[in-house]
Amino acid sequence: MSKQKIPTESYKGVRDFYPEDQFIQRYIFETMARVAEMYGYEEYNASIVESSELYKGKTNEEIVNEQTYSFTDRGGRDVTLRPEMTPTIARMVAAKKRELAFPLRWYSIPNVFRYERPQKGRLREHWQLNVDIFGIPGIEAEVEIIALAHRIMRSLGATENDFEIHVSDRRLLEKIFTTLSLKGTEVKEIMGLLDRRVKIDDFEEKLETLIGKEKAISLIDALSRASSTAYLEDLVERLSNINVKNIVIDTSVVRGFDYYTGIVFEVFDTSPDNARSLFGGGRYDNLLEMFGAEQVPAVGFGMGDVTARDFLETHDLLPEYTPATELVLCVLDEDAVRHATTLAETLRDEDVTVAVNYSLKRAGDQIKFANKIGAEFVICVGKKEMESDQYTIKNLSSSEEHTVPASRIADHMFSALG
Amino acid sequence: MSKQKIPTESYKGVRDFYPEDQFIQRYIFETMARVAEMYGYEEYNASIVESSELYKGKTNEEIVNEQTYSFTDRGGRDVTLRPEMTPTIARMVAAKKRELAFPLRWYSIPNVFRYERPQKGRLREHWQLNVDIFGIPGIEAEVEIIALAHRIMRSLGATENDFEIHVSDRRLLEKIFTTLSLKGTEVKEIMGLLDRRVKIDDFEEKLETLIGKEKAISLIDALSRASSTAYLEDLVERLSNINVKNIVIDTSVVRGFDYYTGIVFEVFDTSPDNARSLFGGGRYDNLLEMFGAEQVPAVGFGMGDVTARDFLETHDLLPEYTPATELVLCVLDEDAVRHATTLAETLRDEDVTVAVNYSLKRAGDQIKFANKIGAEFVICVGKKEMESDQYTIKNLSSSEEHTVPASRIADHMFSALG
Repeated sequence: MSKQKIPTESYKGVRDFYPEDQFIQRYIFETMARVAEMYGYEEYNASIVESSELYKGKTNEEIVNEQTYSFTDRGGRDVTLRPEMTPTIARMVAAKKRELAFPLRWYSIPNVFRYERPQKGRLREHWQLNVDIFGIPGIEAEVEIIALAHRIMRSLGATENDFEIHVSDRRLLEKIFTTLSLKGTEVKEIMGLLDRRVKIDDFEEKLETLIGKEKAISLIDALSRASSTAYLEDLVERLSNINVKNIVIDTSVVRGFDYYTGIVFEVFDTSPDNARSLFGGGRYDNLLEMFGAEQVPAVGFGMGDVTARDFLETHDLLPEYTPATELVLCVLDEDAVRHATTLAETLRDEDVTVAVNYSLKRAGDQIKFANKIGAEFVICVGKKEMESDQYTIKNLSSSEEHTVPASRIADHMFSALG
Repeated sequence: MSKQKIPTESYKGVRDFYPEDQFIQRYIFETMARVAEMYGYEEYNASIVESSELYKGKTNEEIVNEQTYSFTDRGGRDVTLRPEMTPTIARMVAAKKRELAFPLRWYSIPNVFRYERPQKGRLREHWQLNVDIFGIPGIEAEVEIIALAHRIMRSLGATENDFEIHVSDRRLLEKIFTTLSLKGTEVKEIMGLLDRRVKIDDFEEKLETLIGKEKAISLIDALSRASSTAYLEDLVERLSNINVKNIVIDTSVVRGFDYYTGIVFEVFDTSPDNARSLFGGGRYDNLLEMFGAEQVPAVGFGMGDVTARDFLETHDLLPEYTPATELVLCVLDEDAVRHATTLAETLRDEDVTVAVNYSLKRAGDQIKFANKIGAEFVICVGKKEMESDQYTIKNLSSSEEHTVPASRIADHMFSALG
């Protein structure tokens, strides 16, 4: 063993989740999962390690070439830590297409990796709810997916004033590109520019360098006139019918991935303190083709934990930390150790969450410990309690005390907790 | 986009979790988490990517040199996909040692990676409950950790006849090594051999090659005579007091990691069909030293999902699959689409989990779909239902039918589900 000190920091751009942080992760993930299940989406999962080949088809080239964590395993296979979940779900659906029942509704909350310069809302690893519906070619799928995203935001405590859902249609762009005879890699690069339009200062210069001044002017002009389509109007109207009213048609919404084929959407925070895109998705009808499978219409979105947490912080919607531990038993002397262990086991049989403080420190220090970890109740166990079978339960938030026999502790706690 | 087909298989040695598999994962993880929390353990988490340096201190050399997934990131940093969680929790505790309250009880259910030849019970990626208690030097910690492991097994449906907990003490081995003047790397290699003793045929030959015939004979003799210690007897007696009775003192238990300093234990399946070690752990009091932090006594264990699932299968304890989706709405014609969407949203407001089948296929096909995904109830929505506000709910397991207005659907379902 080397005597050199190893640093205690995590790897750059990823996070350690201490219990207080993990509590917020759980709150966000449980809310996401509950809403997805409410719409009949079933949970799936897969490994973070995928064959690199999976990302060489349809996806964002910048991500694949510059931002993936890729390496060669000990057996010479090229592998990648998934940068997004969509290729994985497409692979899994293609693999069992004949056995699965459509419409197929699946969700997952995987972690994904991108090698980026860490900055606000962007880390090298984040978790991301993925919700996807397969097998519905019509607008019902977009309505459902956007309603589901809307309900997650509402379930996290947001009002319709706190966020806006911007919708556009990739086909609108494609029509403009066709009119201007733009195609192939040119189109891919324009899409990349458009997706970053609000983030870069020299959008017009970059566009001119790419396709020449004349076409650039025509394109910007065409984009500014492209205001809506009948499909988008129908979408807005159907969503309004089910009380999803904060929808904005916004043809500047593009989304980064190449695979979208129709409606795309992005959810924006309306607060000036966090005015940014939170997450988004859209329709991708052709992705299964890369596995040689028949076309399957698909709509989905991905919602990251980092932006979700930023949103909750900005709008003061973070939940208050509550530990799992409800009761701390303080052990007052060595002779009470076994008794406390047995009492704790009995209480667990009655579904009480109980931690025993075996430090044998002074009672005051042990009660401080119970306060520090955020437990609701504390009981000290010593000679007196062992002999009398009478235990004083202190409620640490109200400072109320009650003395009861062991057999009444669980009942007392449950009724005090409501 | 290339027209070459991309394979749909997952990377070798890892798993895709389709909803039926994910359901079992969830059942196992939720049981583990519930029991860990019952003992006051709080959840933490960290990234799968760690600096490679973290594993160059105290851990199993075979794993670090031959079995890690290690690579260099785009910024030239050496990183590793964690092969186990203990170095990570030690790092996190060392980083905030002064702010944390001891005794500290934490758990996590991370995935971990090892480059191994995939075989029964051994994959390249598995998930592993990690439960650790820091700050208790005495036997109470071992008693609690083993009782917790025992309660997880019981909560998964196992009886005490289905498994056995074998306990030993590293100090017993160390005493024998000292008597025989064995030390340093010799000891490490002997430990490795002992840990694999039941799996390899030529244990004695290998041992002779390593330390010579004479010492090998003395060691095997000393091991066979080393039957127990007062500490082990005390442990067994205290566990028996709280009804943990399937404990066996077994000095052949070693555990693979170098960092253990006291009690070690392994849980064995007693079924002849799956007679193997399921999981284990022990005391490791010196691990925080590698971060330059003061010594903190620690006891913990890791319990993997693959062996847990094998155990449940062997003992016929796997839960029956139940989907999230409780109700399927079948849409009988195009005119009923919007009505079904609105009805579904209303039911979700009342906490019903509902999937809408928008395929517009024949009613019979849509009911087949509801059966195939395992939903409990189905309602068909067409012109008649829209006009009358009377909906026939069919319970798919009992075939019972009830006709109620929209406002009574949720109540009817909840009372039918109990």
